[in-house]
Amino acid sequence: MGMPLELNTMIVTKGREKRVEENLFVLVKEGYRLYPIDIPIDVKKTMDSDSSGSAVIKKVEWENSSTTITYQLVSLNSTN
Amino acid sequence: MGMPLELNTMIVTKGREKRVEENLFVLVKEGYRLYPIDIPIDVKKTMDSDSSGSAVIKKVEWENSSTTITYQLVSLNSTN
Amino acid sequence: MGMPLELNTMIVTKGREKRVEENLFVLVKEGYRLYPIDIPIDVKKTMDSDSSGSAVIKKVEWENSSTTITYQLVSLNSTN
Amino acid sequence: MGMPLELNTMIVTKGREKRVEENLFVLVKEGYRLYPIDIPIDVKKTMDSDSSGSAVIKKVEWENSSTTITYQLVSLNSTN
Repeated sequence: MGMPLELNTMIVTKGREKRVEENLFVLVKEGYRLYPIDIPIDVKKTMDSDSSGSAVIKKVEWENSSTTITYQLVSLNSTN
Repeated sequence: MGMPLELNTMIVTKGREKRVEENLFVLVKEGYRLYPIDIPIDVKKTMDSDSSGSAVIKKVEWENSSTTITYQLVSLNSTN
Repeated sequence: MGMPLELNTMIVTKGREKRVEENLFVLVKEGYRLYPIDIPIDVKKTMDSDSSGSAVIKKVEWENSSTTITYQLVSLNSTN
Repeated sequence: MGMPLELNTMIVTKGREKRVEENLFVLVKEGYRLYPIDIPIDVKKTMDSDSSGSAVIKKVEWENSSTTITYQLVSLNSTN
């Protein structure tokens, strides 16, 4: 037994992020996930897409088998 | 570099817990700490004291270099 | 995606440990597991059995989707 | 108390890696560090340098307050 965790090194939004403020987003993911906080990491729309930008996670919450992250977008990659 | 974490296998309250409801407590700890969630773990007043009971962490929040846990006391050891 | 991990707060041997030296044992577990190292933790034969003693993990290795721990038994609970 | 850990999302070699085979390297880092295994991550010479390539960690060992990783270089960025 033990507690299942998933170590994540980037944010994959699947388009489910909610904008809270200007550059601040909230995203809920299934299960308990370990993300680096206060460190710039890549943001992608899907696992296989290119990086759409860079973000810093400001808050991580674990509850009821889900993980809620609040992140600040710090740079955007142009897509053309 | 990287993100400093501390793996914790028990709750050490140092008497700083706040009661929220009947058996539900909130405790703020310095730094980012990894606790097992949804699993019974020991509760102690200090590192060196005997276990004062058993609790299940229901929520873990990481923000601003601190960790807030919400836990439910599930058993109490009598101390006399 | 990400890397699946399991946070473990005790050692459950299922009788599969191998004795290396006097009090030193090696145990292989499936998957990548995070154990506290250099800290006394409970040893159990099965999830539901009582603690059979206390051990300190000296080494953790992750490779090929399995975790190998080397631990030193530091105390034994009598069982009669 | 607990067990101090550092979550790492890339490999920073500081030029201390040892080549074991063709594309296989071993690197020893201070302290216990959590790295994603079996997943491509960036390799850098220093924290502030550009990525020098991409690698997949094949093995992680924790012992005596240090972490030894064995990684396979899977791509190299040209530097001119």
